[in-house]
Amino acid sequence: MDPRIREHAELIADHSTQVEAGENVVIAMPREAEELAVALHEVVGDRGANPVYLNNSERASRAFLRARGEDGDEPFETPDHQLALYEETDVVIIARGGANVSEQSDVVPETTAAYRRAMQPVLKERLSKRWCLTQFPTSGHAQLAGMSTEAYENFVWDAVSLDWDAQREHQAEMVDILDGADEVRVKSGAETDVTMSIAGNTTLNDYGEKNLPGGEVFTAPVRDSVEGEVHFDMPLYRQGREIEGVRVRFEDGRVDSYSAERNEEVLDGVFDTDEGARYLGELGIGMNRSIDQFTYNMLFDEKMGDTVHMAVGAAYEECVGEENEANESAEHVDMIVDMSEDSVIEVDGEVVQRDGTFVFEGDFE
Amino acid sequence: MDPRIREHAELIADHSTQVEAGENVVIAMPREAEELAVALHEVVGDRGANPVYLNNSERASRAFLRARGEDGDEPFETPDHQLALYEETDVVIIARGGANVSEQSDVVPETTAAYRRAMQPVLKERLSKRWCLTQFPTSGHAQLAGMSTEAYENFVWDAVSLDWDAQREHQAEMVDILDGADEVRVKSGAETDVTMSIAGNTTLNDYGEKNLPGGEVFTAPVRDSVEGEVHFDMPLYRQGREIEGVRVRFEDGRVDSYSAERNEEVLDGVFDTDEGARYLGELGIGMNRSIDQFTYNMLFDEKMGDTVHMAVGAAYEECVGEENEANESAEHVDMIVDMSEDSVIEVDGEVVQRDGTFVFEGDFE
Repeated sequence: MDPRIREHAELIADHSTQVEAGENVVIAMPREAEELAVALHEVVGDRGANPVYLNNSERASRAFLRARGEDGDEPFETPDHQLALYEETDVVIIARGGANVSEQSDVVPETTAAYRRAMQPVLKERLSKRWCLTQFPTSGHAQLAGMSTEAYENFVWDAVSLDWDAQREHQAEMVDILDGADEVRVKSGAETDVTMSIAGNTTLNDYGEKNLPGGEVFTAPVRDSVEGEVHFDMPLYRQGREIEGVRVRFEDGRVDSYSAERNEEVLDGVFDTDEGARYLGELGIGMNRSIDQFTYNMLFDEKMGDTVHMAVGAAYEECVGEENEANESAEHVDMIVDMSEDSVIEVDGEVVQRDGTFVFEGDFE
Repeated sequence: MDPRIREHAELIADHSTQVEAGENVVIAMPREAEELAVALHEVVGDRGANPVYLNNSERASRAFLRARGEDGDEPFETPDHQLALYEETDVVIIARGGANVSEQSDVVPETTAAYRRAMQPVLKERLSKRWCLTQFPTSGHAQLAGMSTEAYENFVWDAVSLDWDAQREHQAEMVDILDGADEVRVKSGAETDVTMSIAGNTTLNDYGEKNLPGGEVFTAPVRDSVEGEVHFDMPLYRQGREIEGVRVRFEDGRVDSYSAERNEEVLDGVFDTDEGARYLGELGIGMNRSIDQFTYNMLFDEKMGDTVHMAVGAAYEECVGEENEANESAEHVDMIVDMSEDSVIEVDGEVVQRDGTFVFEGDFE
């Protein structure tokens, strides 16, 4: 086994999720990531905790969704046994790394949306635990990134093994700016100009806990406050399909109109999942300078140092202040704006990032 | 996908476990059996049920057992989250088919025994559901059987797709003999002569429900009634090791002494698991004439038409009459006696099988 896999497992168990003796852990990953799962069983066993190992198989999931999805509008039920599993769980560790990122490309978006609605109680339960989402470097994801498998392995394991203390300190400067702020405005090129309130909400510093790699600060917009237009000019993969050139117009917080240059019907499925899928649940600012290339994988792309991402759908409850309402949804879809050129982030009228450089970085002018 | 995999999945869902709409299903199998899992997700989805997919990885399990087993005598806890999962489950489908049957050969037997003790509540819960144990034909199991992978695939899928109605009728003749009987005596060669009472207990007809392939009738001995000696002259694989030439002496139902020609220390671990592991929990009579070769796999070997098997450890509760006590244990280890030569089964003093031929078969004399 590559020694970096064991190091990855130790980071997940100790840094990201702080697994302790007597705790119940769920390890959920596709078969291609089995070596990471093996290493995690070793570490989890060593720490005195109890694992259950789920096979997150996109092939199996596709087969189920297609077979069950033919049954009509609401063909899915909340699986009580899975819910019961998570209710008794302390820590959830999930790795991506399937063989084929297009595996669910022939599941119709309405089916996926119906499934997500049925799974929402399970998702909510899972998100209420300590959890970590990470990546195992497989050929399929290397191919998606346009990289050789070995180069992609280096990319992933380098990104995972960052100096997270230093990263936390770097990001704390941005958390200080956002904490207590009222209004954030994001402008980029001719097509993105959006403002939102974050008053009363909390900005979190992601230094490799819930996401590994981490490298962003994120908060929740006040639900009805989002106004303006966004051109998400970086593509995203969703349900096995690449969605390109998404444009969204927000009015009173709600998605008023939208379009995509490619695979718009996947977006239809997302926005039609439930009412909450039409509101922003997250504003995130990428701050990880060590991720230096776009790999079509949101876990990495959204952390890049000159990007901003916004997610439609569920807000993270930890971000939402007592006086604000958390946006609830079965969806959570991140989309990215490239901030490297002709772009600014303003906080309460002050420019805090220009063309991808933060106000507290050396080369800001 | 080989069409026989889909047929196998349909047999499991419809014949073996009768999956119905709205039911919660657990599908547990190693990564090598993923095609069967995919087919099962399709069938389970089509029947309107809800799957959870566990990865039964021997590698992960070994890593966990070795890491946690170093912690002393009782290093394991019952995993409450796994127990909660099974409590809300209606149907459990398990397939064997790992890449390497020796994967757990470097886990010490005491560790395995301690783990089984901690898992007993989970096992008991699982056995209280509708369940099916089956086989996916992998290279590892083909190698164990001394067969090419393709020949082994044919062997497994032929065995699975038997005419189970005809098999049930054939076996019903033996159930009739055993139901209501008092004493069973099994004699073979110079070293096996054992008697036991089955009075008040129920004999079940296994025609491919809990085991696929099925092909045996089985019951529970009255716990304290087993007397005599047994030479289990067919080898078995347990914890990744081949155990050969097991000899056991029973007194008042309890294992009084035992030996094995090979890997006796694995047997030590089994018998030291708990007190119930020293008593017989099952008497089974193989009746499946279509399984015509020994493959070192208990799921098939114990069904062969001229074998008898006895399991130390837990009795199946459905076999135990109201006035008898079910033997409880965290273990259940089947061992086989070859009945093809110089052997008889007597029921209440009547010979019902001689040299592997049943009294109701044409060539019995």
